[in-house]
Amino acid sequence: MSEVPAHVTLREVGPRDGLQNEPPVPTAQKIELLDALAETGVGEIEAVSYVNPRAIPQMADAGEVWAGIARAKGVLYSALVPNMVGARRALEEGFSSIEAVVSASRTHNLRNINRTPEESLDAIGEVIAEAHARGASCQVIVATAFGCPYEGEVPEAQVVGYARRAVELGADSVCFGDTTGMGTPPRVRRLVGGFRDACPEIQLGLHFHDTRGTGMANLVAALEMGVDRFDASVGGLGGCPYAPGASGNIATEEAVYLLQEYGVETGVDLDLMIEVAGLAQHIVGRELPSGLLKAGPRTRLAV
Amino acid sequence: MSEVPAHVTLREVGPRDGLQNEPPVPTAQKIELLDALAETGVGEIEAVSYVNPRAIPQMADAGEVWAGIARAKGVLYSALVPNMVGARRALEEGFSSIEAVVSASRTHNLRNINRTPEESLDAIGEVIAEAHARGASCQVIVATAFGCPYEGEVPEAQVVGYARRAVELGADSVCFGDTTGMGTPPRVRRLVGGFRDACPEIQLGLHFHDTRGTGMANLVAALEMGVDRFDASVGGLGGCPYAPGASGNIATEEAVYLLQEYGVETGVDLDLMIEVAGLAQHIVGRELPSGLLKAGPRTRLAV
Repeated sequence: MSEVPAHVTLREVGPRDGLQNEPPVPTAQKIELLDALAETGVGEIEAVSYVNPRAIPQMADAGEVWAGIARAKGVLYSALVPNMVGARRALEEGFSSIEAVVSASRTHNLRNINRTPEESLDAIGEVIAEAHARGASCQVIVATAFGCPYEGEVPEAQVVGYARRAVELGADSVCFGDTTGMGTPPRVRRLVGGFRDACPEIQLGLHFHDTRGTGMANLVAALEMGVDRFDASVGGLGGCPYAPGASGNIATEEAVYLLQEYGVETGVDLDLMIEVAGLAQHIVGRELPSGLLKAGPRTRLAV
Repeated sequence: MSEVPAHVTLREVGPRDGLQNEPPVPTAQKIELLDALAETGVGEIEAVSYVNPRAIPQMADAGEVWAGIARAKGVLYSALVPNMVGARRALEEGFSSIEAVVSASRTHNLRNINRTPEESLDAIGEVIAEAHARGASCQVIVATAFGCPYEGEVPEAQVVGYARRAVELGADSVCFGDTTGMGTPPRVRRLVGGFRDACPEIQLGLHFHDTRGTGMANLVAALEMGVDRFDASVGGLGGCPYAPGASGNIATEEAVYLLQEYGVETGVDLDLMIEVAGLAQHIVGRELPSGLLKAGPRTRLAV
């Protein structure tokens, strides 16, 4: 408990990681969702990704979305980029924060983009340099950091090795992604510990999926080690691309609620975030997995 | 981590707490579910409750269910009893383990059974004596131990006070029930710590609901304090009686999975338990909340 930080930065990833795993949503509704999220007080929002629209039609309107939102003061917006083409576009369109992804699983990386992780990291090095040349920052997300749906176990040393290489290439921060919800608290502790030993000065974020019921337990395990940056998706928007019908990201409002219980400040207005979860549910037209959206906060009493 | 026990006893409560919060299920299917659960290796099963069938029609066939199941060797079956009438019936029909409930919230207890907690505890004292006279054991479940949907906060000292009174009355063990999913890890630590100070010799079980996304995080918090008895419901069967559509008990297979990740032995065959979760889902005819049921264990790889 002693290492629990006083403040945690939540990055809302519903508009990108969430909507990328839902049927396509009209641009105007994406803008509505993004602007509503910005009002909640959340510190960071992953707004769009600049990916190939043939591969991921859900993000084909990234430019229009980014041009259409209010760009609230006090919110750091970011874009996920798969390569230099996407990176240049994001930077030209005014993003000051971008994210590049490499999978710690060789098979996963090969299947996704037909490159080895080493080849991806070489390309990411160039993306980082481009971002820095334009005064922007670049985070490297290490995906399948807690397990791979093709390979199973991904050794912690391998995950940490790729993270360290990203840092050597200039990454401003690292995020470990639990792409398919294979993380558990003991694995979280080992990976966070391993990363800190390797890169003690580098900011670390964690991205958990609740696919197997462990998402919030993983957050708690990391929080109690002092980790102070987490991704979450409003309402639990999204899903697991490898398990149809399964849950994806942890729900932002549940993370806010749990952090409040620890006395941790997030800047987020919990009631507002629950309202936005209702909006997200309306937009995608299906019941979202968030329990807090159904039950309300513990302070909401029965009549 | 140092206090994580080597073995945890799971009590499967799906047939009782789960089905009590679902539309009524035919007797034969209850028997099928109970016998399938007994095959998984789970240590204890809360099989039925002997409650007023006008109040809770879902449990009207408790006697037939209990008479019809295989009563597997190695499984401790228990019955929940609301009063001396139910207790005598359970004991006469051969249960060697019964559970009585008192709510730590005065309002909740009054609304449920029109008695103060103190009046309930007096009656429970007689139930305990009756059980002991017949060579059976009696657990006292303290409900709304982490919060009340009517009162909100329920002070830990009050919860511990009722638990201590139950122990004075002869309770063989105590279980804290998070009736409407208001528990969080900091609250779990305070209550477990408070109970241990008050009743260091008494076996403690915990019963979590995942109504607000904290169920598994609560289990981890308690596990890491050495708590070695948890209730869970196969598939996450059941719901929260105060929040329509909300989740109820934590899912047994998710608890087994998480405990395996800690190297904790439960005796449960995880694949079998996931199969039974599928059976439970079939029986109630709705999608159950268990993520593991949808996604499979982390060892199940994509093709």
